[in-house]
Amino acid sequence: MLSYPIHIGADAREKLGSFLRNSDYSQILVLADNHTYDLCYPKLRDYLPVHEAIHIPAGEKFKTLETCVGVWSKMTDMAMDRKAIVVNLGGGVIGDMGGMIASLYKRGIDFVQVPTTLLSQVDASVGSKLGVDFMQYKNHIGLFNDPQGVYIWPGFLNTLSDRELASGFAEVIKHHLIADQAGWEGLKEIRDLRKLDYTQIIEHSVAIKQRIVEEDPFEKGARKSLNFGHTIGHAIESMRLETEAPLLHGEAISIGMICEAFLSREAGLLDTKALVSIIELISHHYPSTNFSAGEFDDIIARALNDKKNEGKKIMCTFIDGIGQFKVNQEISDGDIEESLEFYNDMAKGY
Amino acid sequence: MLSYPIHIGADAREKLGSFLRNSDYSQILVLADNHTYDLCYPKLRDYLPVHEAIHIPAGEKFKTLETCVGVWSKMTDMAMDRKAIVVNLGGGVIGDMGGMIASLYKRGIDFVQVPTTLLSQVDASVGSKLGVDFMQYKNHIGLFNDPQGVYIWPGFLNTLSDRELASGFAEVIKHHLIADQAGWEGLKEIRDLRKLDYTQIIEHSVAIKQRIVEEDPFEKGARKSLNFGHTIGHAIESMRLETEAPLLHGEAISIGMICEAFLSREAGLLDTKALVSIIELISHHYPSTNFSAGEFDDIIARALNDKKNEGKKIMCTFIDGIGQFKVNQEISDGDIEESLEFYNDMAKGY
Repeated sequence: MLSYPIHIGADAREKLGSFLRNSDYSQILVLADNHTYDLCYPKLRDYLPVHEAIHIPAGEKFKTLETCVGVWSKMTDMAMDRKAIVVNLGGGVIGDMGGMIASLYKRGIDFVQVPTTLLSQVDASVGSKLGVDFMQYKNHIGLFNDPQGVYIWPGFLNTLSDRELASGFAEVIKHHLIADQAGWEGLKEIRDLRKLDYTQIIEHSVAIKQRIVEEDPFEKGARKSLNFGHTIGHAIESMRLETEAPLLHGEAISIGMICEAFLSREAGLLDTKALVSIIELISHHYPSTNFSAGEFDDIIARALNDKKNEGKKIMCTFIDGIGQFKVNQEISDGDIEESLEFYNDMAKGY
Repeated sequence: MLSYPIHIGADAREKLGSFLRNSDYSQILVLADNHTYDLCYPKLRDYLPVHEAIHIPAGEKFKTLETCVGVWSKMTDMAMDRKAIVVNLGGGVIGDMGGMIASLYKRGIDFVQVPTTLLSQVDASVGSKLGVDFMQYKNHIGLFNDPQGVYIWPGFLNTLSDRELASGFAEVIKHHLIADQAGWEGLKEIRDLRKLDYTQIIEHSVAIKQRIVEEDPFEKGARKSLNFGHTIGHAIESMRLETEAPLLHGEAISIGMICEAFLSREAGLLDTKALVSIIELISHHYPSTNFSAGEFDDIIARALNDKKNEGKKIMCTFIDGIGQFKVNQEISDGDIEESLEFYNDMAKGY
């Protein structure tokens, strides 16, 4: 059982306001990045009791200990004591890093998460993994710690670009593919991501992730289902990050899901009709790309170095029909190459 | 109940060796400082299975995030994974900082504490407070987390100077003053700190601290008894740290205990005979000092800024006869001045 409440809906800001007013915090600090400070904080501030707000530069490259040190210095200068609370207003970077900042300040003060991207609303707020990047490794320094609550106001999604909204939607697609066959039928019909009832969509995704995380808090089994699309997708994301044309997380994962759905079919777990329905939905929402032979090698090399592997084996999660999964599926470099060739061929058609 | 074992005695090294051999750790890293690497590590290494050892500069001024970053880089270069363990070999600085380093590496790997000073053997190993100093504040960034075990080999005490040994003994004196009237009678007779059965002394002190910490894990009441001698003692330590003649922690606390025992008598809680017995024991083991009027003011100013205060009040723990205590006793700047004058007068006689 999660030990903290997740509030989702049009009244999430009011609920955060009353939580803070009814608590006995000595100080309230809103931590934003420069984007969410400009775009989201004005939509939140009037709901909060007296507080201070600070912002840090936006982006994964500032998810570092140096940024933490800067915030800790400000908190110290503000004489924040052990009864203060931090309100993390932003996407996954702010949630992960702000949670760590609060968890280590004076051996730990309270914090709440106010995710503002679709990705963080459906994904990053459940699971209590906090941290920063270190050297070239993502989330290499961090800890597990629970917030006092998560407050999800779908209205923040209006501050996102179309690309960012679609990127978060990839995790919604993933949650259906691994856990909700019935919901998939409705999801397939979605055409315009701007015209959705996000309260219902986020509640659905959060419930699926929550169920899976509770079932397997230490990532021994079921929780690996959440890695569907991520073995190949992460490798693609990481390769493209070093180019002039990086992909957003969900954009890379959408390609990874096509590749891994293809491999699920090759393994006899998924029929062609289901594979086609996945391709159709993803192709509608994401631009297609084309990988060169050199990029194939790069992607395979990165997949081999994935921290989720056991020894030298590349481990993957397959879907076993839509709505079910099989974890710990070993794949070879040849399998990855074949799946990328399939993706390239398929992409030509869209 | 403590959730981890504390092994004290001549066979502590063997016990650590078998714990490590019987566990399934992928790598073992011994973290020492340059002193304990030279003096203690050679006495430990043959008891351990295959491992690596690294050392950092000794001293409180290296208890920083920068030092953590250096160790994390080495751990990363060594490709330590989530199944590795850190063995912290040293005094309070290594225990607090090494525990934090392990607790944050890849969101937390196991660690054990192998304290090598009397102070850390009787004091720092119970309570699971981890952290580093930040700006001018001690332990400002840190967390609570339990080790897998604490292994206390009294043989390491032979590596200490007489001053360091006596410094740790101040906490032993404190534990008797707040919690063991019967034991006090024996303690008073001790003349030579080199000729003691430290296994028994450490067991006794650890048991007292453990009982108090379990009774009051969040420092609301009984745990404040451990602050006896520390309100004035910490202020003296911090003042002298900025001079050419710093005092060791226990040396400063021994003066603080005389001052606060004096104030306990002023409050009618302690009789003169008991106060004299405290003065006699402390004067036997610690050199006396003499404070100037300017130093009085400095000590009072620092006591006013103590993080244990509530608002503007200076809070202190008194002893209520030997072996009992009263927490949350408010004292004035005049009280501190009077106690320092008493100390100065008393010190002249020894």
